[in-house]
Amino acid sequence: MSGARRVRIDLAYDGGDFSGWQVQPGRRTVQGVLEQTLSRLQGGRAVRVRGAGRTDAGVHARGQVADTDLGVPHSDADLLHALRSMLPPDLRPLRLATVSPTFHARHDAASKTYSYTLDRTPSGDPFRARHALHHPHPVAGEPLRRAIELLPGRRDWSGFAASSCEIEDRVRELSQAVYEEPADGVGVFTFRADGFLTHMVRILVGTLLEVARGRFAPERIRRILDSGDRTLAGPTAPPHGLCLEHIDYPDGRA
Amino acid sequence: MSGARRVRIDLAYDGGDFSGWQVQPGRRTVQGVLEQTLSRLQGGRAVRVRGAGRTDAGVHARGQVADTDLGVPHSDADLLHALRSMLPPDLRPLRLATVSPTFHARHDAASKTYSYTLDRTPSGDPFRARHALHHPHPVAGEPLRRAIELLPGRRDWSGFAASSCEIEDRVRELSQAVYEEPADGVGVFTFRADGFLTHMVRILVGTLLEVARGRFAPERIRRILDSGDRTLAGPTAPPHGLCLEHIDYPDGRA
Repeated sequence: MSGARRVRIDLAYDGGDFSGWQVQPGRRTVQGVLEQTLSRLQGGRAVRVRGAGRTDAGVHARGQVADTDLGVPHSDADLLHALRSMLPPDLRPLRLATVSPTFHARHDAASKTYSYTLDRTPSGDPFRARHALHHPHPVAGEPLRRAIELLPGRRDWSGFAASSCEIEDRVRELSQAVYEEPADGVGVFTFRADGFLTHMVRILVGTLLEVARGRFAPERIRRILDSGDRTLAGPTAPPHGLCLEHIDYPDGRA
Repeated sequence: MSGARRVRIDLAYDGGDFSGWQVQPGRRTVQGVLEQTLSRLQGGRAVRVRGAGRTDAGVHARGQVADTDLGVPHSDADLLHALRSMLPPDLRPLRLATVSPTFHARHDAASKTYSYTLDRTPSGDPFRARHALHHPHPVAGEPLRRAIELLPGRRDWSGFAASSCEIEDRVRELSQAVYEEPADGVGVFTFRADGFLTHMVRILVGTLLEVARGRFAPERIRRILDSGDRTLAGPTAPPHGLCLEHIDYPDGRA
């Protein structure tokens, strides 16, 4: 048996039937299913998996990154093959690679990209009901554009954090904020930052949708940012439109 | 209150959480949810809804057509609006129109078109797990093409009918059979006919996938057709890849 090595696993999942990423007793979580499966692969040895983003219940991922230490002699290709056959249809391993023993999926991440998808069809598409927020209302494009342009930058995001957020340092750099309509009946928000606070993307979307419906003026964004007052922002958009798209690492880390 | 009128309702649904189209006691069915909802709209009066295709448990629809008689004075637009707000996210009304009082969604149908979707990605896409059969195996294009070319025509389809099929006249005209790969990792079979026998599309797909994997010679299709022997055909493909795409009506009927 070869010595332990650290592997990076890239994952996609439909979060609809998971109680989020993080292990919780008695709940089906992504981390929990991964750890159980990797433990089975190693004859029952306890396994810890770290994820780059701790997604909430109902939130999806197309590009989650995890790391773990494995003590099995199988090649990376064999491990990926085994995980493909052992993991359920709603949690899929995309890639697996041996990395530096100091790689840390969360600490080493340079940025994370989240999308939030709207279903803008009048009736709602039943095939996207689990992965997009049905939002058949008109979208006021020009006010929305002006509101979004106020967002990028390095600042305190307390006004867009859940009241339950326990993170003390609330300064983050948001490097990208975009709204696009890539196809008929589809609207997608994209946000990239070096980190996000609890529910930050969902509160950003909930607030921008108030602007898009004409209920908030675009300039309200500035007031929320300056005051850090969560009560000025819009509601928290539901989790099922949200997807962790991508984690970026600096060159040389994974 | 105006007199009763017949309406045509076009529907899309994700069949994953339905026990098929047809009403069954104690089960959640598409017809059942529709009839309950239309009954509520009419103060509890019993309502019967007919569907063009009686889809099985787990089978989806993008273009199901139903008809029913309504005794409410609301306009078609108001009725559609009411159904949009009352029906669940996995059963969506697309269009609603008053039609001739003799319109019959099933008897008047000239043809039905079904699709069957494959997810050909190596790991399986978790976002398509409910709507596509994961089939990561190589597809032998040329044998598959030859097998598919043997299908179209007017003939007895007993060899591709479930043993439970109670239909006596098993002659149907299959006017279209196609396999396409419209995008990377996606394969789609499309079949159009004036009618289908029980499980016919799923047995056709199960048989064609045996050809695609090199387990059946393309010419076996002819033997199955000529003998009418179900045991020569492949397995019944699972329901979740199947979708009722479209119902065609002759000009002048709906």
